[in-house]
Formats: sequence, structure tokens, C-alpha cells
Amino acid sequence: MAPQYAPSLRSRLPLVAFLLETVFVLLFVFFVKIEQHEQIDRKYDSKLFIRSYAEFQDIHVMIFMGFGFLATFLVRYGFSGSGFNVLLAAMAIQWAIMMNGFLLPQRQYRREIHISMKSVIEAELCAASALVAMGAVHGKTNPVQLLLMALVEVTGFVINQWILRTLLHADPVYSIMLLHIFGALFGVMVSWVLHREGINPKHEKEKTDRNTGLFAMLGTLFLWMFWPSFNSALVYHRWERELKLTVIYGTYLALAVSAVMAISVSMLTNSKGKMNMVHIQSSALSGGVAIGVAMTAVHTPWIAMTIGFFASLLSALGFRYMKDHMLFAFECHDTCGVINVHAIPGILGWFANLILRLASSESTIAMRFAVYQICVLLITVCMSLVMGTATGLFLKWSFWRPQQDRKCFDDQAFWEFPHLVVKK
Amino acid sequence: MAPQYAPSLRSRLPLVAFLLETVFVLLFVFFVKIEQHEQIDRKYDSKLFIRSYAEFQDIHVMIFMGFGFLATFLVRYGFSGSGFNVLLAAMAIQWAIMMNGFLLPQRQYRREIHISMKSVIEAELCAASALVAMGAVHGKTNPVQLLLMALVEVTGFVINQWILRTLLHADPVYSIMLLHIFGALFGVMVSWVLHREGINPKHEKEKTDRNTGLFAMLGTLFLWMFWPSFNSALVYHRWERELKLTVIYGTYLALAVSAVMAISVSMLTNSKGKMNMVHIQSSALSGGVAIGVAMTAVHTPWIAMTIGFFASLLSALGFRYMKDHMLFAFECHDTCGVINVHAIPGILGWFANLILRLASSESTIAMRFAVYQICVLLITVCMSLVMGTATGLFLKWSFWRPQQDRKCFDDQAFWEFPHLVVKK
Amino acid sequence: MAPQYAPSLRSRLPLVAFLLETVFVLLFVFFVKIEQHEQIDRKYDSKLFIRSYAEFQDIHVMIFMGFGFLATFLVRYGFSGSGFNVLLAAMAIQWAIMMNGFLLPQRQYRREIHISMKSVIEAELCAASALVAMGAVHGKTNPVQLLLMALVEVTGFVINQWILRTLLHADPVYSIMLLHIFGALFGVMVSWVLHREGINPKHEKEKTDRNTGLFAMLGTLFLWMFWPSFNSALVYHRWERELKLTVIYGTYLALAVSAVMAISVSMLTNSKGKMNMVHIQSSALSGGVAIGVAMTAVHTPWIAMTIGFFASLLSALGFRYMKDHMLFAFECHDTCGVINVHAIPGILGWFANLILRLASSESTIAMRFAVYQICVLLITVCMSLVMGTATGLFLKWSFWRPQQDRKCFDDQAFWEFPHLVVKK
Repeated sequence: MAPQYAPSLRSRLPLVAFLLETVFVLLFVFFVKIEQHEQIDRKYDSKLFIRSYAEFQDIHVMIFMGFGFLATFLVRYGFSGSGFNVLLAAMAIQWAIMMNGFLLPQRQYRREIHISMKSVIEAELCAASALVAMGAVHGKTNPVQLLLMALVEVTGFVINQWILRTLLHADPVYSIMLLHIFGALFGVMVSWVLHREGINPKHEKEKTDRNTGLFAMLGTLFLWMFWPSFNSALVYHRWERELKLTVIYGTYLALAVSAVMAISVSMLTNSKGKMNMVHIQSSALSGGVAIGVAMTAVHTPWIAMTIGFFASLLSALGFRYMKDHMLFAFECHDTCGVINVHAIPGILGWFANLILRLASSESTIAMRFAVYQICVLLITVCMSLVMGTATGLFLKWSFWRPQQDRKCFDDQAFWEFPHLVVKK
Repeated sequence: MAPQYAPSLRSRLPLVAFLLETVFVLLFVFFVKIEQHEQIDRKYDSKLFIRSYAEFQDIHVMIFMGFGFLATFLVRYGFSGSGFNVLLAAMAIQWAIMMNGFLLPQRQYRREIHISMKSVIEAELCAASALVAMGAVHGKTNPVQLLLMALVEVTGFVINQWILRTLLHADPVYSIMLLHIFGALFGVMVSWVLHREGINPKHEKEKTDRNTGLFAMLGTLFLWMFWPSFNSALVYHRWERELKLTVIYGTYLALAVSAVMAISVSMLTNSKGKMNMVHIQSSALSGGVAIGVAMTAVHTPWIAMTIGFFASLLSALGFRYMKDHMLFAFECHDTCGVINVHAIPGILGWFANLILRLASSESTIAMRFAVYQICVLLITVCMSLVMGTATGLFLKWSFWRPQQDRKCFDDQAFWEFPHLVVKK
Repeated sequence: MAPQYAPSLRSRLPLVAFLLETVFVLLFVFFVKIEQHEQIDRKYDSKLFIRSYAEFQDIHVMIFMGFGFLATFLVRYGFSGSGFNVLLAAMAIQWAIMMNGFLLPQRQYRREIHISMKSVIEAELCAASALVAMGAVHGKTNPVQLLLMALVEVTGFVINQWILRTLLHADPVYSIMLLHIFGALFGVMVSWVLHREGINPKHEKEKTDRNTGLFAMLGTLFLWMFWPSFNSALVYHRWERELKLTVIYGTYLALAVSAVMAISVSMLTNSKGKMNMVHIQSSALSGGVAIGVAMTAVHTPWIAMTIGFFASLLSALGFRYMKDHMLFAFECHDTCGVINVHAIPGILGWFANLILRLASSESTIAMRFAVYQICVLLITVCMSLVMGTATGLFLKWSFWRPQQDRKCFDDQAFWEFPHLVVKK
């Protein structure tokens, strides 16, 4: 193949995908069943199902539409943004259903994984953590690399949850919300290892135009609108009903404040008073991330709003001042700014959770709780950093045929544009 | 700053938004709580919640996706259309939760506002009335002006509802559906006061292209598809179940007829038999507006379809013949044609409601009912005209730094396009 | 009118649409009522309604957003793709409510059609079959032709269902899922009869660009995400609850595998290893079609995944190798490749259903069942081929003023682009 083309993945991606799909189907043959209904309380389950299915649909839209179209903001990388998102998410979900079933069984099923609304929702949240990681390397990796990264990320994230739940007896709802911190740090480490000198300081194709900005707005809005379902979906037991409502209203208000702040800060920090669409889209979501981590400790609307306020403030400032700094100082390029959208607001939420719980508990157990919380965060951060670095080194292997620097952020490396070629 | 740039809002918008957000958070600290569940019937509420949350999501999508993308039809104003929509709606919702809580308390809560699905849905409908008003001045005002206008509009609309409900004992479901008439007339008055000679007869940037037409189609479809939820969301009590279903099916059929008529009339009134995308998008929605005002009196499908038929007919004719006429005769420029989409179909719905009720009531009370209905309309119209004019005069103040005529309908006044600049 | 313009439909479409709408309203006056609630079990119905309304909304989004935006992939035909979709679907729904009510009454209502969630969902599925047929002739017919085709197609499809249900006592849920086979073959026959030499071998406007590819992605994703609701919506009786869940999870997994396979096969079959966006979008949906026909016989996740695997494989191969072949060999041009997306996966699903049922039944009844199943397929295929051919001949009549070959796949034949003209 002539050197002007991107290396063909014809001998890589289809093979890997076929193999993985075959393995998945075989695993499903032996281990996965659909939940039997005789085993569960019929009446209770009926209501549960109605609500769960609606919430599952909201999350399903977030994963496939929301993340997919948020990733179309690059002017020449829209097909890849939405297309690879579907590929990754569809694979990650199948893998996560099995990983969750093996490591975090829902009930006392022996040797079998039972698909239920809960297991599917959890699988989608695991896929979300992989998509967050994808944001950091977006445009600089080919689909085989992304696919492998996603599967390793999901594995790591489920193992991390298993550690937190088994060893530290963490709350499942809380441990799964660490997906933002885990995914973002994982992705940033992969991006750091895979750093390309060639896209430094700024790749000419890394930009937005009027149309891709609106496509990204579409994805942003779907994430933004359905985030209350994302945070509250797993908060469901008879005794947690009020918590569920509190989470829904809290997320809703935090996101409203977050959107207003994102616009204000973006205008304030530009010397000509002009807003940046990409920054606004990303920062508007940070309130949902922060409140997601802190949600079980937030009981009043104004605290949720305050968390949204500061999450968006930090995130918007990070986009203006930290993103370029990270590239120059650490040679780490973070395409979608996941560190500003997911990692920092996630850690802010962790702090809010810590402080709110300390404020409401006695001093004797406060100290123990603080140590416990710090352990949870440290384990998650270490796991994500170590696994991200290892994954990066594995993906650096030239066997995976990464595209040239020149073909970064460019659909033409992977997609047919026959008519454009003909036209020339 | 050099004269070729639009005036910077750096010293205006962030300050206003910060201040307002701080005030909102403080008001929430003292007055707003999340609804306590001990106070409500548990079983009844469970079903109520499931259904309400789904309907709330539909309306949420309409407000943020629907209105936002409908406003992207201008070829160079898509970022502003969807971005300002989020800003306004996010602020209007917070303000409407409080205004509704103070003036129209749901139950006998003392000195406290309780957030519930109902209060959030009502807040979104109030935000919708502000977004309708925004349609009239779209592209000719800056975000500070829009933000202030939205908050005044919500205040006026809630006061109007308070008058109708308290003094005239109007049905809450009916009074809130007057949002179309109130919002449209309010917006048109603001636009009339702020009239710019410079965009007369036609601004060169006020046009649509293939892509923005499709983005607007997206917004239109979300409004069109979820309108049955919009109309029926607040129709819910045990004894109104049939009314709710009637409203859902009626809105659905009225919109179907409306869409067909919009296409037909648009083709019929063009000399070459060609359709106009913007007219069709707007007129297809008019059936939902009209049926929304009349809905409590419509009990058979064919009446709903007939209302949809005439609403769309009037609206489509209005777009072809009245829009330009309004500009020349009254110097009133209505960017999104809200008078044809919301005001005229709204008044048609009011007439339909009047006639249907008179037809089914005895002659002795018919007269009283007619006078009562006329009062309701007159109060709403007067309130909207007076408040719209006052708001327009306030916004005319040059302190708010409106963009120049030349920068109307242009994103470049407010948004960074760094890469476009670099490319030149 | 000068010869360079497409023939004006001003004297055709509005007249036909007005007439049809008037007839529809009159039919609704005499025959259609909204379901009375005294007649149905209150408590049971309440749950039924909540779930049905959510599922109806999902299907509603698929019909209007999904099909509409999937049809925007042609670079100069986006307005027509989404606009005609709304026109057709809105008319088809009204007509299908009546046809279904007359031929397939839900309960023992005499002389009256009662609108219920079930009847509306069935009407939307009938509209879907018309939209599938539209895919084959997309871009080569004018809106009057499409409108008439849609109404004939719905009539034929309902009659086909009536035959299957009355004469062969077929399961309603199964017979309605044959909509893919019926619609696709119907559309292909219409396209065959209306074949234009002028667009052979390839029309210059039949192509995709970056933006229309993303708009089509949007439509694809809405279809893809909500397909579990599409397949399961009519599976609802107290005794079928487990089947409903099985269908939901099965469709979900089949589609996930389908998407992965579509991407893999598209890359594998291109000599440079590049993917084709249009092929991927279409093939990713084929799993939903196949599982839809087979769903009542699929009880384990891995069978669903296997069906998704092969449906996508066949569909993606069909796009690469069969589409052009069909044009050259049979002079049949299938714009959206409905034969590869709907007909072939549909028949695959039929085979899967047959084999799975034979495998689980005794040999004595197996033979009878096989004959019965073959009859069902043969009747459906014959009906669709005959009616499609007849409809094609009717639409060939020049009275309907089809656009010239040169104006195929071009919005400018039907839509105003005033500002583009002014700009020149």
C-alpha cells in the first residue's frame, strides 16, 4: 500500500471483532440466562420493571446518542466519533454483562448469569466508563486499539468495584459512580503513553465548525437531559425511595446551575467576551458528574446547586487554562478534556461527599470514615493509573497499526468517501 | 475595542448570571425543600411518580432539545439558537419553581416551597412561555437582554396565572395552556419596541440552508412527537383519567392533520408549487397549540382533527402573507413567526373551547360563561401586551450593549471561532 | 413553466391531501371513538396504560425521527427525506387506525372503532411498513406518488394480516412483524416498475457527505436504540410477561452483535479496509428485523445473538455485492437497500422461527407446522409482489407528474431555496 494512505486495518479489526464476538456468544451459551420470574415477587417486580425499563432507555440513549454525538465535535472526525462509539459500547456491554455476572453476582445464582434490567443498566454504566476513557485518546487511536482499550478498561473497572465492594464493603451505588474518575484517569494515562510529538502544539484538524458544533450540542443535550436517570437508576429499593427522588431533583438542579455557570465562565475568561462552544458543552455536564459521586449525602436542593456551581466553575477554568498546560508540561493530550469534565468534578464530588458526611456524623467515627473514604479514592486512582499505563504500553505495539500523525482526527483513514474521491 | 467587533458582554452577562445564581441559591437555602413523602399517599403516589417522571422527561426534551434546535434554523445563528435556549431555560426553571411556589402553592405548605414532579413540570411550562417570547426577538438581542426578558416574562406569566386562578377561579390546567398566547404577544411587543430599521426589509443573514433546515427539523420533530405529553402532563387526578387519554389521542390526531395541512398549504400558496421548510415546521406544530387551549372541551377525535386542520391552515397562510405585512405595516419583526405558531392558533383554540362549551351548556349559563371566557382572554392579552412593552423599553437601554444591526443573526458576535480566524 | 423546472405539483398534492383529509375526518365522525374506560378492568388497565404509553412514545420516535432522519443520507435530498416521511407517516397512521378497526377489530365492538394505545401502536407499525416500501423508491418519486403508494401499501398490508389471522389463524404479534418482508418486497416491485433508465448506472446526486452521514446516523441510532420497544410493544398479556422480557433482552443483544458485525464486515469487504457509513447504518439494524420475525421462538440470549450475527453478515454482504447486481441484472434500483435491510433479514428470521419451532416440537406436528409456515410466507410474498406491481403501474401514469431523471435525489424539485437563488 502506498505510503500516503493510512495503514489498512482489514487484517486486524474484523479478525479481532469476529474472534471476540464468537467467544462472547460461546460464553453466553454456557453461562447467561434470562432472569426467571418465578423467583421474584411478582407484584413488586412489575412496578420495578416499568420504571427500570424507562430508566434503562434513558441511559441507553445517553450511551449511544449522547456520548456518540458529543464525540462528533471534530470537524473531520464525525463518522469515527459516532461510529466507533457504537462499536465500543456494543462490545463493552456484552463483556460487562459477563464480568459483572462473574465478579458481582446480583443474587445467589450459582454458576449462572441472569440478565435483568439491573444487570443491563450496570453493563451500560461500565460501558460509560470505557467511553469516558475513549474521550482522552479520541482521534489519535484506531478502532482496534480503542476496542482493546475498552475491554481492558471495563475489566479494570469491574475489578476495582469488586475490590471496593468486597474488601471495603463500599455501597454499590457509590462505587459505580466512581466510573468518572476511573475512566478519565485511565484514558489520560493511555493518552500520555501514546503521546505523539507530531500533534504538538496543535493539530490542524483538531477544530470545530458550525455543523459539528451543533451535532456535539445534540449529544451534550441528551447527556444533560437524561443525567437524572443516569444517577438515580441504581438507587432503588423500597427503603430508598426518597433518596431516589432527592437524587433526581438534585441532579436536575445541579445541571441547571452548571449550564448557566459554564456559559458565564466561558465568556468571562475570554478577552473579547466570546464563548467557546466546546468548553460550554463539556462544563455544563460537570455538575452531573460531581453530584453523581456525592449524591447519597446531598439532602437539600441548595447543596446540589452549590456543587453544580463549583463543578462547572472548576471545569470551565480547567478548559481555558489547564488543557494546554497539560500538553506542554506533561506531554499529555486530552482530546475531549475528560480530566476537566470527569476527573476533577468527580474528585470534587468525592470531597463534597466526605465533608457532608463528616458534618453529619460524630467525631469518633468521623476520623474512621475519612480514612475509609481516602482509601476508596486511593485504590480507584491507583488502579486506573496503573492499568491505564499498562494498556497504553500494550497499545503502543506497532502490530496494531496506528494511523500516522497526519491522519489523526481524520475520518479518511477509516471511512470510504468514494464520491468525494470521484469528484476530484 | 475596535468598531468592527460586536460590543463585548464580558462585563455584563457573567456578572448578571453570577448575581442571579447567587440569589437563587440563597432563596433555595431558605425556602425550597424536596417534597416529604410521609405527607402523601404512598401507593397512589408511586404510580403517579412513575408516570409523571416519564412525562416530565418528554417535556424536558421538548424544552431543551425541541425549542433549542427549532431555533437553529438561521444559517449563521445555530450556536446562539441552541446555546441561549439552554441558558434561558435553565434560569427560567429555577425562577419559575420559586415564583410558582410563592404565588401558586400546591398544598397548604407554610412559608416553604416543596419540589415535586408537578412543580418541576409547571416550571418547565413557564420556561416554555419564555422560550416562545424569545422566538420573536431571536437573533436581534444579546444574551443579557434575553435572560432579563425571560425572567420578567416568567414573572408576568405566573402573576397572570395567579390573577386568573385567584380572581376568576380558572382551572389551573386551562390557565397554564394560555402560555402560548401570553408568550407570543409578550415577545412580539418586545420585538416591536426594539425594532431595528437596519434589518428592514430583509437581513441578508436571515435565511436557512440544507443543514440548518435539518437541525431545525430535528427540534420540530421532538416538539411534535412529545406534544401529547406536553398537553396532558398536568391533567392528572383520579377522576380525570379519561380526560387525560382524550387529550393524548386528541393532540396526537390534531398534530397528524396539522402536519399534512402544513405541507399542502405551503405548496398551494407558492406560485411554483414549492414548499417552504421553515413554514412547514412551524405550522405543523400549530395544531398542538390550538388543541392545547381547547383540550378540556374536546371529547371526540374528529373535533380534534378539525381543530388541527384549521389551526394549520391559518398558521400556514399567516406565514405566507402576514409575516411580511406585519413588518411593513407595524414595523414589527417576528423572527420565528411566533404570532402565527402560538398566538393565532392559541386564540383559535380559545374560540373552539368557547363554542364547544356553549354548545353543550344551557342558555342561562352560556352567556355568563362567554363573558367569563372573554375576561380570561382579555386579562391575558392585556397583561402580555403591557408587560411586553415595558420589558422592551427596559431592554432598549444601551447599557445592555445590543449588537449592531450588521451583527444580527450572527454567531460571531458572541462565540469564538478561533480556527476560522486562524485559517484566514 | 420553463422546461428546466421540475413539474409543479401545485394542482396535485394539495388537492389529493385536502380530499383525503376531508374523507378521513368524515370517517372519524361516524366511526371512531375514544375507548370507554367503563368497559375495561380499571386496575389492570392502569398499569397497561403507563407501560403502553412509554412504548408508544418509543415507536413514535422511531417512525418520525428514526425513519425520517435515516432517509436524509442523500446529500441533496434531506428536506424531502425527513419532510415526506412526516407526510406519509401522518396520513398512513390515520388510514391504518381505520383499516385496522374495520378489518381487525380488537374486541367485540359493533360498527365502531375505538382508539386505544394498542390501536395506535398497531397503526404506527402499519405506517412503518409503508415507510420501508418508501425506502426502495426514495428520491425517484414525487410526494403525490409516495402518498398514494403509502395508502395502498397500508391497505394491502392490513388485508394480508386479515387473511393470515382469519384464514390461517396466525398469531397477531407474528403476522404484524412480517411488515418488513411485505414492505420491502412491495417497495422493490414499485421501484422495478417505475425504473428509470436515466439513473443507470449511478446518479450523480446519489451520494452522502459528512453532514448527511451524521444526520442519517442520528436516525439510525433512534431506530437502533428503541427497537426493543418496537418488537415487544404488542407482546403484552398477563401470561406473556416473560416472553416480553425475553423479546426485549433478545432484541437488545441481537442488535449489539449486529452493530459490531456490520462494522467488521464492511471493513473486511473493502479492498482498502475502509468502512462504508451507509452500509453500516443499514446492516446494524438488520439484527432487529430478523429477531423481530423470530422472536416468539427465541428463548435464550445466545440464539438471539447468533441470529443478529448472521442477519448482519448477510445484510452487509448484500450491500457490498448485491445492490449493484440487482440494478444491472433486474433493472431494479433500491435506494435505501430495503431488500438487504428488511427483506433478507426478515426471511432469515422466518427460517430461524421455523427451525427453532421444529426443533422443539414432535415430528407428527412438525410437518404440518412447516407447511403452515410456508403458506404464511408465500401468501405474504405473493400479496406484496402483486400489489407492489399493480401500484407501480398505477403510479407510472404521467398524470402524477414525476420529476425528470435529472431532478431525482434533489430537493430543489419540491422545496423553496429562495435565498440560495437570491445569492446567485
